[in-house]
Amino acid sequence: MRKEHDFLGELEVPDNVYYGVQTLRAIENFHITGQTIDHDFVQSMAKVKKAAAIANIATGRLNKKTGNALIAAADEIIAGKMLDQFPVDPIQGGAGTSINMNVNEVIVNRALEIIGEQKGRYDIISPNNDANMAQSTNDSFPTGIKVCISHKSKKLIKALNYLADELDKKAEEYKDILKMGRTHLQDAVPISLGQEMGSYASAVRRGIKRIENSVSSVHTINMGATAVGTGLNAEPEYIKMVAKTLSEVTGENFTTADNLIDTTNNTDGFADVSSAMKVTALVLIKMANDFRLMASGPRCGLNELKLPARQPGSSIMPGKVNPVIAEVLDQTCYQVIANDLAISLGVENGQFELNVMEPIMAFNLFNSMNYLTNAVNTFVDKLLIDLQPNIKQCTTWLDNSVGIITALLPHIGYENSAMLAKEAYATGKPVREIVLKKGLLPEEKLNHILSPEQMTHPGIAQ
Amino acid sequence: MRKEHDFLGELEVPDNVYYGVQTLRAIENFHITGQTIDHDFVQSMAKVKKAAAIANIATGRLNKKTGNALIAAADEIIAGKMLDQFPVDPIQGGAGTSINMNVNEVIVNRALEIIGEQKGRYDIISPNNDANMAQSTNDSFPTGIKVCISHKSKKLIKALNYLADELDKKAEEYKDILKMGRTHLQDAVPISLGQEMGSYASAVRRGIKRIENSVSSVHTINMGATAVGTGLNAEPEYIKMVAKTLSEVTGENFTTADNLIDTTNNTDGFADVSSAMKVTALVLIKMANDFRLMASGPRCGLNELKLPARQPGSSIMPGKVNPVIAEVLDQTCYQVIANDLAISLGVENGQFELNVMEPIMAFNLFNSMNYLTNAVNTFVDKLLIDLQPNIKQCTTWLDNSVGIITALLPHIGYENSAMLAKEAYATGKPVREIVLKKGLLPEEKLNHILSPEQMTHPGIAQ
Amino acid sequence: MRKEHDFLGELEVPDNVYYGVQTLRAIENFHITGQTIDHDFVQSMAKVKKAAAIANIATGRLNKKTGNALIAAADEIIAGKMLDQFPVDPIQGGAGTSINMNVNEVIVNRALEIIGEQKGRYDIISPNNDANMAQSTNDSFPTGIKVCISHKSKKLIKALNYLADELDKKAEEYKDILKMGRTHLQDAVPISLGQEMGSYASAVRRGIKRIENSVSSVHTINMGATAVGTGLNAEPEYIKMVAKTLSEVTGENFTTADNLIDTTNNTDGFADVSSAMKVTALVLIKMANDFRLMASGPRCGLNELKLPARQPGSSIMPGKVNPVIAEVLDQTCYQVIANDLAISLGVENGQFELNVMEPIMAFNLFNSMNYLTNAVNTFVDKLLIDLQPNIKQCTTWLDNSVGIITALLPHIGYENSAMLAKEAYATGKPVREIVLKKGLLPEEKLNHILSPEQMTHPGIAQ
Amino acid sequence: MRKEHDFLGELEVPDNVYYGVQTLRAIENFHITGQTIDHDFVQSMAKVKKAAAIANIATGRLNKKTGNALIAAADEIIAGKMLDQFPVDPIQGGAGTSINMNVNEVIVNRALEIIGEQKGRYDIISPNNDANMAQSTNDSFPTGIKVCISHKSKKLIKALNYLADELDKKAEEYKDILKMGRTHLQDAVPISLGQEMGSYASAVRRGIKRIENSVSSVHTINMGATAVGTGLNAEPEYIKMVAKTLSEVTGENFTTADNLIDTTNNTDGFADVSSAMKVTALVLIKMANDFRLMASGPRCGLNELKLPARQPGSSIMPGKVNPVIAEVLDQTCYQVIANDLAISLGVENGQFELNVMEPIMAFNLFNSMNYLTNAVNTFVDKLLIDLQPNIKQCTTWLDNSVGIITALLPHIGYENSAMLAKEAYATGKPVREIVLKKGLLPEEKLNHILSPEQMTHPGIAQ
Repeated sequence: MRKEHDFLGELEVPDNVYYGVQTLRAIENFHITGQTIDHDFVQSMAKVKKAAAIANIATGRLNKKTGNALIAAADEIIAGKMLDQFPVDPIQGGAGTSINMNVNEVIVNRALEIIGEQKGRYDIISPNNDANMAQSTNDSFPTGIKVCISHKSKKLIKALNYLADELDKKAEEYKDILKMGRTHLQDAVPISLGQEMGSYASAVRRGIKRIENSVSSVHTINMGATAVGTGLNAEPEYIKMVAKTLSEVTGENFTTADNLIDTTNNTDGFADVSSAMKVTALVLIKMANDFRLMASGPRCGLNELKLPARQPGSSIMPGKVNPVIAEVLDQTCYQVIANDLAISLGVENGQFELNVMEPIMAFNLFNSMNYLTNAVNTFVDKLLIDLQPNIKQCTTWLDNSVGIITALLPHIGYENSAMLAKEAYATGKPVREIVLKKGLLPEEKLNHILSPEQMTHPGIAQ
Repeated sequence: MRKEHDFLGELEVPDNVYYGVQTLRAIENFHITGQTIDHDFVQSMAKVKKAAAIANIATGRLNKKTGNALIAAADEIIAGKMLDQFPVDPIQGGAGTSINMNVNEVIVNRALEIIGEQKGRYDIISPNNDANMAQSTNDSFPTGIKVCISHKSKKLIKALNYLADELDKKAEEYKDILKMGRTHLQDAVPISLGQEMGSYASAVRRGIKRIENSVSSVHTINMGATAVGTGLNAEPEYIKMVAKTLSEVTGENFTTADNLIDTTNNTDGFADVSSAMKVTALVLIKMANDFRLMASGPRCGLNELKLPARQPGSSIMPGKVNPVIAEVLDQTCYQVIANDLAISLGVENGQFELNVMEPIMAFNLFNSMNYLTNAVNTFVDKLLIDLQPNIKQCTTWLDNSVGIITALLPHIGYENSAMLAKEAYATGKPVREIVLKKGLLPEEKLNHILSPEQMTHPGIAQ
Repeated sequence: MRKEHDFLGELEVPDNVYYGVQTLRAIENFHITGQTIDHDFVQSMAKVKKAAAIANIATGRLNKKTGNALIAAADEIIAGKMLDQFPVDPIQGGAGTSINMNVNEVIVNRALEIIGEQKGRYDIISPNNDANMAQSTNDSFPTGIKVCISHKSKKLIKALNYLADELDKKAEEYKDILKMGRTHLQDAVPISLGQEMGSYASAVRRGIKRIENSVSSVHTINMGATAVGTGLNAEPEYIKMVAKTLSEVTGENFTTADNLIDTTNNTDGFADVSSAMKVTALVLIKMANDFRLMASGPRCGLNELKLPARQPGSSIMPGKVNPVIAEVLDQTCYQVIANDLAISLGVENGQFELNVMEPIMAFNLFNSMNYLTNAVNTFVDKLLIDLQPNIKQCTTWLDNSVGIITALLPHIGYENSAMLAKEAYATGKPVREIVLKKGLLPEEKLNHILSPEQMTHPGIAQ
Repeated sequence: MRKEHDFLGELEVPDNVYYGVQTLRAIENFHITGQTIDHDFVQSMAKVKKAAAIANIATGRLNKKTGNALIAAADEIIAGKMLDQFPVDPIQGGAGTSINMNVNEVIVNRALEIIGEQKGRYDIISPNNDANMAQSTNDSFPTGIKVCISHKSKKLIKALNYLADELDKKAEEYKDILKMGRTHLQDAVPISLGQEMGSYASAVRRGIKRIENSVSSVHTINMGATAVGTGLNAEPEYIKMVAKTLSEVTGENFTTADNLIDTTNNTDGFADVSSAMKVTALVLIKMANDFRLMASGPRCGLNELKLPARQPGSSIMPGKVNPVIAEVLDQTCYQVIANDLAISLGVENGQFELNVMEPIMAFNLFNSMNYLTNAVNTFVDKLLIDLQPNIKQCTTWLDNSVGIITALLPHIGYENSAMLAKEAYATGKPVREIVLKKGLLPEEKLNHILSPEQMTHPGIAQ
């Protein structure tokens, strides 16, 4: 055990850990979820610390030996080492001070080792004076969240692109499978199964743009703001430089906010990212539910799609196969929508120079990004790739339908069409038969109007 | 025009209106929704004023002549008069002060007329000293909300009872209509259409109890709390009495809170009522969606129910009839769920001795109660009463199904059943045929097991 | 009374009204809110009808006489006439069919009058065949919503610009008023009141961009999609043209979606607009709450701002003035956040080729836009313009503070600073006194470090 | 490795694990959160299995040897063994089938060992035929959730009682500390700090009742419902008995639902429990925020409470101590509110005979219960117990206040009082001085009216 102290007093820290007294206090204070900090986030914080050290060396405030040791320690974390040294609960008070100090302490203690000193020798390298130089939790913590969002968003967007691409493949593959289009869950007019798949792809691609736009908005950072956005204790030269060093460290393009005070006390950028995921989740739910409906049955439902069987569907009903993959996507999306509310409540509750609710925002943003990425990949891998259309059933439904009357509308008028529909519903007779019997249209013209080509592409058959 | 003044100065008030200077200020300050105060709520506030006047006369603080004039004026409002004298926007700052003062002013000016004096003679009868005697907005306003909730809840519960009763009638009427039960939208095991209707009725009745319980919780009032709950300026005798006089005025059983401070600064009772509506709305959505699914088609969907045609379903597709009544219930329920969030945000944001967000709570509570009452009545009147089952289709689906295998499970085991199901799905053959061909069960026993009686009531066929 | 019929039968329509049989059915079917269609929206729908008529004349499908009459009738609505002819409840089933047909009927009946025919002569001009030519509710209704969003967003953005401009004026005006910055509601380091005002302005301007971006996304329309997005019955030439005619009619730049099927069955664009308002509302709440906190007191609170007195604050506490304008902004924002949930629930619940929940989306979008516009204008007009800083109190707080120690950190180190803070808190002595007594810094240097210039601009005092 | 198969085929299962083929499929299918099933829930499911086995032995359907082995295996799980054998992700499709089968498989494989057989010998004891006898996931899974809710609710209620008790102690302790009461964050009238603490306690106790009521509503179970609520394959005798055996196993009073179909397809009981937590969370937020406000400062804020220092408050501002414990309670409550939305979305999305979204409900219910319990205990242990009132500051504020004028209202009237307040605000003079100078009241009477006793207890000073 080594002894460390902060201005509240002294605590004993196990000798083998890299974190220090302030992390210990956090461990004691916050037992909420039983979880620890997301590893991507720890690494993002390390990148922020590295970028700050580079800038601080450049301004001459940080001596090179110390600075290089800090950078080396940060690099180890970035490379995936010491990730077990961040035991703090993600739901915490203090606006991220505990996470920021956990990172400062681990980096400093490892840096001390690197330069051949003992852990805890904060007189040589200090978590507050050196690792946190020219920073406050109030700028480094939200910047770390932004770095992490940027990183995680790549995985999410990759998953969404994977989904959109696979949907587009299905759109091409199914483009000639005519089926009944439905509005209000009622028979409407024909459409192709490929057109439906293409519409899902189109909506997913809009989701990708939406998320990318929102993520680009959190590339504006407040490094240099320090405590309240006035940049107290941060050299102007450092403020100018640190976004650039962070860009180099991350390979992303981060820029310094025009108004550091605003960017310190407002967290609406996080709400933007979450909203983008929420709206995309709403679209995914619609898609997943369409799949569930089209796969319904198989004997007593629509039965237009055959989903791959992934597990026995029932502990009591033998042979039953359920759309479990679509269901898990739905539920994941519900969680994303719910997490957005937690984030909204956090964003709402800032006061004055800081929003102290950033930890709950980070927790929910990272969860939403992780869960949604996983659920989208699962949907593609476990459902979409092995999807089979039931062409025969699609055709059977269509042959049986009344909705094709709409195509006759420009030729026989709304009133005639309505009466025709009424008779078809009442008698159960095919529309074609009634039209011909009543002599409403010559057979050849009728065939032309009702051809697949005419039915699924715009225009009135001539 | 007459001149009135408050401590901010003097304003000219049109002579023909009963409201006064403070109402004028509110009109000027709050233009948000363009709506005015719910009439039930105005009348509820008048009941609170009447109850306070009765108690104040009893304690001797209010002289009888003034008191009786105030009561007479309040009675006119309760009887439906002067409801156009409450022009204040329901979304307002000031924690309801504007509504409370609007009511005080109208009552006082009408009381002045009743005793033969001119409107505006507040030296004779005063809105603040007399109509508001021993009260604050902070007790009379939330109490008025509670009186109004109680009133509106009766209409809502009547509507829900109407729905549950009609569903129970359908349960009885359809009790012998066997159909395929579905889980995961996949064919499961048989059930009767009546059993489904009965399950909706049962859930609605639970909703009724839930709402009744929550409404009973807001029968605890804080009259006598005055400004902050300490009862400053309210006589102990008055505090003891006023819940009783309010009970007499309303015909409801209101009681005084044990802790007036808590009941003044916490508004969780309103969240309880809203939550009860929200949860009930969730159940109604599920029911409405089942109706939409069962009515889907008619040619290319489940087609188990025929909803009455209420309007042409499409401006372009002739003959189309959509489940518009179920759809409007769904959407109303979404609004109720959303309104609950507005209320939650309000309840969350109290500080110290008062929650100043009560107006947004009242606005959303009353809207939710009104809308939900209307939508439920609409659902019964326009859909449920004229509902028709499609018995033939229900039977067709069932004959075609594989799910009946579950009933064979206790007789042939899970593994045999699963293989049987697989074969039925693969070949499209009826289950019955395969069982007999494989000699898994004797025909007589099979018939017995698969009889409607055995299928919809618990137990293993012997 | 005149007789009109649709395929459900005949109804009597009062002779003096312009709407017809389908509007009558809607009136009968939907009594939910007691409200009627937003007037901006009616006019937006008329613009859509006008644009469609122009395009239909151009393709030659609509004869000029009829077309011109339809355009003339639409123009009257656009000019503000006949707005009382749209009695339909905004919460309705049927995905907007009732609104679309209400508009079709009024335009047609007025067009009939214009050409000298009697209302109801749908054999001459027909709501379905002519006013709705080449359209479905499924394309014209969401397009009308988008036109209306575009229109209303201008008012909202104007209000937000008004707010941001006024905040920037205050930023300039208050730029030299030093005050204590606060994080965690705890004293932090100095900031200027102007810097705070500027940070609100900056955040509001980001809200403007956010809303503009989302509104630009709903300039992609699905006119020509007709029933399910395949464009059945719409001439390709019409599809190409109609976005252009709508752009001309509205003075906005509308474009046709690349994927009409997607744009017909997905409504995420509406969720985007609502999310943009929601996130902006979160920021406004934070700002309003800061004003409420800074105006707290006046004797027992922060008392840094004096809000203009708009109405007596209490029915029982004389002289009390409450921050009612900030409170009404808060509550309006809660409503906007809640409305966003209603919209999300609607967007989530589309199926197949259509999302039938569009009416609840329109209702909540329009309410949110109206309410928020009103509340923001109210905030500026009734609060911000007459705002007064309490310079004396700001200075008193600052002189009394310990937070200035942070500025000494680079000069005396974290540990010395922490001990210094501890002593200041314990003894109540001014920081300056302790520093000098302990000889931690020479007086001249101390004065320089603690000067306003050094305190509110970045950098370490040299 | 051993081989196991289900109707989808054969898989190799590691020999050392107790779970089997269906669990393996779930592991492969569901990678969403990276978490595993809550241990309390695993044990609750084991209790359900034990109760079913006891009832099945009693009806004679399950042979005693097999049944006793199953019970012994379940008992081991209940005692805390094999909890690492439940690797399934809590967010999953299939309505809990994977969890139910995981439990069935572990119990069966352990039971096989107990009777001296090898794991995987499902021909001797079968997960589907024996462990799941007379059950479906559709009854045993939601019943397991209910058992777990009941269990977890005890910890939550214990924590809330702990909080209420400690608040009541503070109410007693601080009952004579007079302070300024505040409404609208504006000075109102005096109250005691103890009265405030008592009001929090009172509200928390209402939360306890609310949660208890909702939890009692989920003691109605649907065991015996089997697949769709009709009880297919469950003996009537078993259905009658199983709630009783579950009550014995759990020490709770569970009863069988009157309508098993309703209770299988509706999940509103889960929404009730979540709503109860949500509303309670709203109240806790208000309380936590009051603490944060009262502890604000210390030099530039209200400074009425001194919270214990739990960790350094800033990485840059020395000596700063933040209300981190109140902040973590706030954020946990945001999560509870958000989780309630996930649950609502799940409850909304049931169809026909089942709500397949139960896993997301369970996940969020358990998280909310765990997190809230932890945060409440943390609030008491880390903040409330060591709370210190700042009596001197409370008195200073009060002496400085104008709000005491309200107490003079019954003696001098509203108009005089309002003018008095105006003068006090304008001149900064103490109210007492002005009253005496103007001769509004004799000094002795004034002293009596303004005494602490008169100020915090109801009534007009005589």
